[in-house]
Amino acid sequence: MENGKWKIKTAKKLPKITLVGAGPGDADLITRKGIKALQSADVVLYDALVNIELLEEVPDTAIKIYVGKRANKHAFKQEEINKMLVAYAYKHGHVVRLKGGDAFVFGRGQEEMAFAKQLGVQVEVVPGISSCISVAELQHVPVTARGVSESFWVITGTTRAGQLSRDIELAAQSTATVIILMGIRKLEEIRQLFIKEGRFDTPAMVVQNGSRVNERKVVGTIDTIVEQAREATIGTPGIIIIGDVVRLHPEFVEQAIEEQTQIIQRQAA
Amino acid sequence: MENGKWKIKTAKKLPKITLVGAGPGDADLITRKGIKALQSADVVLYDALVNIELLEEVPDTAIKIYVGKRANKHAFKQEEINKMLVAYAYKHGHVVRLKGGDAFVFGRGQEEMAFAKQLGVQVEVVPGISSCISVAELQHVPVTARGVSESFWVITGTTRAGQLSRDIELAAQSTATVIILMGIRKLEEIRQLFIKEGRFDTPAMVVQNGSRVNERKVVGTIDTIVEQAREATIGTPGIIIIGDVVRLHPEFVEQAIEEQTQIIQRQAA
Repeated sequence: MENGKWKIKTAKKLPKITLVGAGPGDADLITRKGIKALQSADVVLYDALVNIELLEEVPDTAIKIYVGKRANKHAFKQEEINKMLVAYAYKHGHVVRLKGGDAFVFGRGQEEMAFAKQLGVQVEVVPGISSCISVAELQHVPVTARGVSESFWVITGTTRAGQLSRDIELAAQSTATVIILMGIRKLEEIRQLFIKEGRFDTPAMVVQNGSRVNERKVVGTIDTIVEQAREATIGTPGIIIIGDVVRLHPEFVEQAIEEQTQIIQRQAA
Repeated sequence: MENGKWKIKTAKKLPKITLVGAGPGDADLITRKGIKALQSADVVLYDALVNIELLEEVPDTAIKIYVGKRANKHAFKQEEINKMLVAYAYKHGHVVRLKGGDAFVFGRGQEEMAFAKQLGVQVEVVPGISSCISVAELQHVPVTARGVSESFWVITGTTRAGQLSRDIELAAQSTATVIILMGIRKLEEIRQLFIKEGRFDTPAMVVQNGSRVNERKVVGTIDTIVEQAREATIGTPGIIIIGDVVRLHPEFVEQAIEEQTQIIQRQAA
């Protein structure tokens, strides 16, 4: 009775969920720990922002389920995903929940963890490279820099109520590098909050599809950034980075060198 | 002329520096991209906080140089490290600069990059898992959580001037999860700033050696955390996490369940 045996075997396997951060998009920006989890997965539930190349690490026998938003169809509700995770863990053993970036940065990973723990399933969390730091970094812009910025503040542009987070108002008054996720559609509102604080000249950049082959970006100031993003038709998913550290972006550096050169040439003429 | 040939060969190799974030300590929390960089390194310069197991990935022929702080000896100065990176790149080719966490989060990686670029060396940056998010995460505490915290603010406890960052004062007034790196020695000062805002009851945790086998932590509130850290002799390197998300830590959750159980038992008696 092959079938009967198989049932007993799977039922005996300890139910476990591993929440794995897949990183910002580049398939090589997952951790070694994340790859090991994928290699031992019986089931993988993955999101829209996950690089599907990563599924090559999963055993052929494993079940792979896409739970992200689908064209013309509704995404799975969070409650559905929670239940699926637990049900698959009890039925098949090791479930890997693969999420874009880091599961604990606006990722609702904690809700999935809490639900599973309540139902007696062991949960492990594997941190991922969060876009909030890495997308600027891959553009050679550090979120902190000695003598430029001593802190960075990561904020969601879209709160549960669908409004702009109140924290952005406070952030505009601080010296922190301000990083806004899920805020592309509210760029003009965000710009207004910074302008209210007189910060027209603060450098700003917007990056769409950071770390991916189709990455696109604009680099400017609070004053110009909305117009630049519109002209370049920058859309979601994207990240907004505001602060003096953006002046370290190669485009700013080149511009500064060019201006210096012109001044020297004019003086020499 | 074996020697002559060899010289020409090395001189012809393109000088390149890759800044690699090694992650918070667990050797499996480096990215696949970071491992690939190590595997193609001609020279590796590594810091004190880097897990030395990672050096197993480096070819036997590569030069490995420790540039962190040494017992009873001064650490290399930043300027010395900058010059070493460039000199080794021109002499040997691919230099990997392996730094704890992420090179661009209080890591001075940007200074190393800027110096090398000025001297004509190509620089690539490979993001690492930063302790600022992952250390809490590995304790099952998310830096953001729907309905609990819409943002997180990462601040250095020690500014260039050696003082407490002014941003911490503002952070105590915000609703952000506040994460302080390099602040263990200023825990009492930090506590005072939160108490001034009436935040005695705000949950707080301190973690030393996060993600490592010798990880230690205390979980409490602003009111109790300094005494707890002292009793547990928590030292550097450590991270402070302040905010309502800390209430999601398993110790808090267990405590809440126990209190609920006692109330129900008393009512039933």
